[in-house]
Amino acid sequence: MPTINDIAKKLGVSKSTVSKAFHDADDISETLRKKILETAVAMGYKKNRVRKDDPRKLCVLVQHLDWKDPAGFGHDVVLGFEQAAVLDGWEVEIPEISKEFQTQISYDAFMLSRSFQGAFALGFSLSDPWMEDFKTAGTPAVLHDNYIPQNPFVTYVGVNSEEGFDLAVSHLNRLGHTRIGYLGGDANSFIVRARFQAYLRAMERCRLPADQNLIGRSCFISECTSRHLPRLLNNGATAILCEHDQLANAVLVHCMELGVHVPKDVSIVGFDDTAFASCTTPPLTTIRQDQNALGRCGYYALTSLFHHTYISSLLLRAELIERRSTGPVQPGT
Amino acid sequence: MPTINDIAKKLGVSKSTVSKAFHDADDISETLRKKILETAVAMGYKKNRVRKDDPRKLCVLVQHLDWKDPAGFGHDVVLGFEQAAVLDGWEVEIPEISKEFQTQISYDAFMLSRSFQGAFALGFSLSDPWMEDFKTAGTPAVLHDNYIPQNPFVTYVGVNSEEGFDLAVSHLNRLGHTRIGYLGGDANSFIVRARFQAYLRAMERCRLPADQNLIGRSCFISECTSRHLPRLLNNGATAILCEHDQLANAVLVHCMELGVHVPKDVSIVGFDDTAFASCTTPPLTTIRQDQNALGRCGYYALTSLFHHTYISSLLLRAELIERRSTGPVQPGT
Repeated sequence: MPTINDIAKKLGVSKSTVSKAFHDADDISETLRKKILETAVAMGYKKNRVRKDDPRKLCVLVQHLDWKDPAGFGHDVVLGFEQAAVLDGWEVEIPEISKEFQTQISYDAFMLSRSFQGAFALGFSLSDPWMEDFKTAGTPAVLHDNYIPQNPFVTYVGVNSEEGFDLAVSHLNRLGHTRIGYLGGDANSFIVRARFQAYLRAMERCRLPADQNLIGRSCFISECTSRHLPRLLNNGATAILCEHDQLANAVLVHCMELGVHVPKDVSIVGFDDTAFASCTTPPLTTIRQDQNALGRCGYYALTSLFHHTYISSLLLRAELIERRSTGPVQPGT
Repeated sequence: MPTINDIAKKLGVSKSTVSKAFHDADDISETLRKKILETAVAMGYKKNRVRKDDPRKLCVLVQHLDWKDPAGFGHDVVLGFEQAAVLDGWEVEIPEISKEFQTQISYDAFMLSRSFQGAFALGFSLSDPWMEDFKTAGTPAVLHDNYIPQNPFVTYVGVNSEEGFDLAVSHLNRLGHTRIGYLGGDANSFIVRARFQAYLRAMERCRLPADQNLIGRSCFISECTSRHLPRLLNNGATAILCEHDQLANAVLVHCMELGVHVPKDVSIVGFDDTAFASCTTPPLTTIRQDQNALGRCGYYALTSLFHHTYISSLLLRAELIERRSTGPVQPGT
């Protein structure tokens, strides 16, 4: 591994300048700091020998999720991670990182600059610049709901979507439903694709046709409810699986506006079991992700990477929570 | 949850008789003991309130694997599990369990009778009677290389086969190989099927045809080498992926007997990186499973089940170990 001296030589700067870049000092320019950090990363430099009084620091990187809202998805995942990490004596920071920020500095260089030893990343879409960085990153990262093939320093943690949709489709099938539709996003996101594929496979396993006329996909919830929902209902869907609870709730509201009764006319199933799922009208049948456990497992997977145990994926069981938005299919439909 | 009293009432025996069955006492008949245990399990009884002086006991259940041989697959998996468990103050036992034994008592009743709180099971094939029990078991179990859908008390731990075969097929493809064959078992086993499927998908991802003329499958290594190997070679295979190292080694030996040079005439890849893989002639290129890490992760997954963190699957990264049994495809082949 290169030393600070090697990096200084390569760039024609002093050792103390390199050291300043690593410790986020004020008296070097931002441009030089970044150049030093990116060069260090490119040369394979790692801060192995942490000074005794250096804090042991991890970070949680959150994109596209309102993790600060206790009712939103992400809050309890972050909490579970923090609780486990703090118990083991780690400091946990949750730095602001925008898409633009990610274009300015690479993931590895950012981690080096802030002395973070590992990251737990939530909510990243495939268009986030650091998703490209994770393919070759050398600083351990655990990604919630994102999978990077073949880089041993990056782990995928999530819930078993296939199992979740199997449970939901079997539940609806037992209630007599065969025309089971799907509403979801079409964003450039690993988990959006994974859930849609899980729906298709669950239908196949139950020997039910996944009819294009019963499938609606759009990035915009409003388009799902105003355009796709009426189409699915007209095409005879007696049950609809929604990619996430927020969408399912919007569907419930829109059904009420259309005078369509849930579950008499159509059964609705969500995904996540977010805090509001029991408070919708009617209360939502949904597939539960144990959010706190996801955070705890994220922490375990991250520390495993520190100890050379390279976990590729860790998936939690999904659980079907039966509430009142699903019911038996009506005779004659 | 039913009490000892409830069980005694149901069977018309005394409480002390039930207690004797639970503590493996000598002075009740084997038939009555089994009846009591199976009834207790059927009624949903669990030994929750362990007495203070009761040892905390886990077991490792091994089938079809010579785990006692340090060179065999399984030895280091068991060791990794034991090391992690003992550090946490558990006693670990490795009871003898034959197929016949499994027909005599259910998994849950066995665990209850021996006061084991959880099991780590290795090497089970789909024809092992307890594989059926695991579908509904209430006593936590972690299965190496076996997946049970939808029972939250059972976790699958293994290595990511898909990733392993991706690495191997890409490696061979970079060496110019396109006619890449497969030799493996056709046993009634989850992992035998999973590895074959992983081969097919890896070929698909590399846009290479998985030609039936280049595939040989049999339970018997001798049939793979004497019948399938010559057929694959005649059909123009320039590289062969083997389901496990033992088979790969037999293939190497047989190639030598046939006057076929490895890797000049054919490249051979194994799976597992068992202890002898570096000592074959030539040393074997293979896909590594970190056995000790599998054991450690097995322990983590098992204790997670005790704490209501229901892990569905935990897969380790596979790693390609390049040795001398693979080389560039020869011009003109």
